[in-house]
Amino acid sequence: MQTKEVVQSFREKTAHYLKQANIVLTEKEKSSIEVADFGLGRLEQVGLQLITYVNTDRYCAKELVLFPGQTCPEHKHPNRANGDRGKQETFRCRTGEVYLYVEGEKTELPKVYPPEDDLQYYTAYKEIVLRAGEQYTIEPDTLHWFQAGEEGAIVSEFSSNSDDASDIFTDTRIDRLPK
Amino acid sequence: MQTKEVVQSFREKTAHYLKQANIVLTEKEKSSIEVADFGLGRLEQVGLQLITYVNTDRYCAKELVLFPGQTCPEHKHPNRANGDRGKQETFRCRTGEVYLYVEGEKTELPKVYPPEDDLQYYTAYKEIVLRAGEQYTIEPDTLHWFQAGEEGAIVSEFSSNSDDASDIFTDTRIDRLPK
Repeated sequence: MQTKEVVQSFREKTAHYLKQANIVLTEKEKSSIEVADFGLGRLEQVGLQLITYVNTDRYCAKELVLFPGQTCPEHKHPNRANGDRGKQETFRCRTGEVYLYVEGEKTELPKVYPPEDDLQYYTAYKEIVLRAGEQYTIEPDTLHWFQAGEEGAIVSEFSSNSDDASDIFTDTRIDRLPK
Repeated sequence: MQTKEVVQSFREKTAHYLKQANIVLTEKEKSSIEVADFGLGRLEQVGLQLITYVNTDRYCAKELVLFPGQTCPEHKHPNRANGDRGKQETFRCRTGEVYLYVEGEKTELPKVYPPEDDLQYYTAYKEIVLRAGEQYTIEPDTLHWFQAGEEGAIVSEFSSNSDDASDIFTDTRIDRLPK
C-alpha cells in the first residue's frame, strides 16, 4: 500500500503527462485519477494510472497512463457470474510505446520482460508492439499484460462494461481494488 | 453528393486538424476518414468528418471532427429491429467547443441555431455546451444534433455498437450512408 503522499504525487504526474499530450481533464477528473499499485507496493515498477471517462452497463472508455518501464501485471477478464461475456477491450496507443503480451505463440527475443521478482506469475508471451496511432483488441478471458517503453505511454482503452472485481490476476497476491 | 476532390480535400483537412491536436492516425486510417455531407450537398454547413477506431458488436469508438460552424443534423438511434437497445453514446469534447441539442426543455437564447434552410427539420433545443474535457451521454432513441463553435471541434465518441443504417433523421431528405 502506498502513502497518500505517493499516490498524490503520481496523480499529479499523470495529470501533467496527459496535459503535455493535449489531453484535457476537468478538475474533478484530475482529482479522481486512480493510481493502482496492485497491492505489490512497487509502484514505479508495477503500476498503472487511469482515468475512467464513462462506464455504463454497455461500454466503457478510459485513459491509461504508464510511466517509463511500468508494468500492468498479467490478468484476464472472464465471463461474468451472471452469464454476461467477459470484458472485450481495445487498446489504442496515443503517445509513447507499449509492449503488450497476450496468450498465444511465444515471441522470441521480446522487447521487454516482466518484473524480475514476479517472473513466475507471467505466462503470456505473444508480443504486440503498439506505437502512437496503433491499436489491438483483446478478447474476453485472454491473459494479457503490458509494459511501457522508455518514454512511458498513454493508451486509450475502449471496451465493454468494466468491472475490476471480476478480473483474475495470475499473481494471486494481487488485490486490484484501489485503497 | 460531393466530388471526389472535395471529399479528398476535407479528408486532408481532417487529418491535419487531428495532427494539430496531437491525435495520431495510421496512414490507413487517414485514407479512410469518412466525410459525411448527409446527402445535402452543403458540406461546409452541414457535415461531419469521422474516423471509426473500432466497432464490435459490443462497443464502438470514433473521433468526430467538425469544422467551424459545421452542423451534424438532428437524428436519433432507435432500438434495433432485432430487439437490441438503440445506440447509447458519450460525446467527449477534446478541442474547441461543441453545442449539443437534445430533447427536453428548450434553452432560451441558445449559443447557435440550426442551418437556416433546414429549420423545419430541427425540434430538439435543450442545449449542452461542451468544452475540452467535458462530456455528455445521450441515451438511445433521443433526438439530438450538434454544431461546432468558431474554432471547430474534435469530439471523441464512446458508444455501444454503431449502425448508421438504423439511425433516424428528422430531415427525411437525409441519406446517411456514405457514397
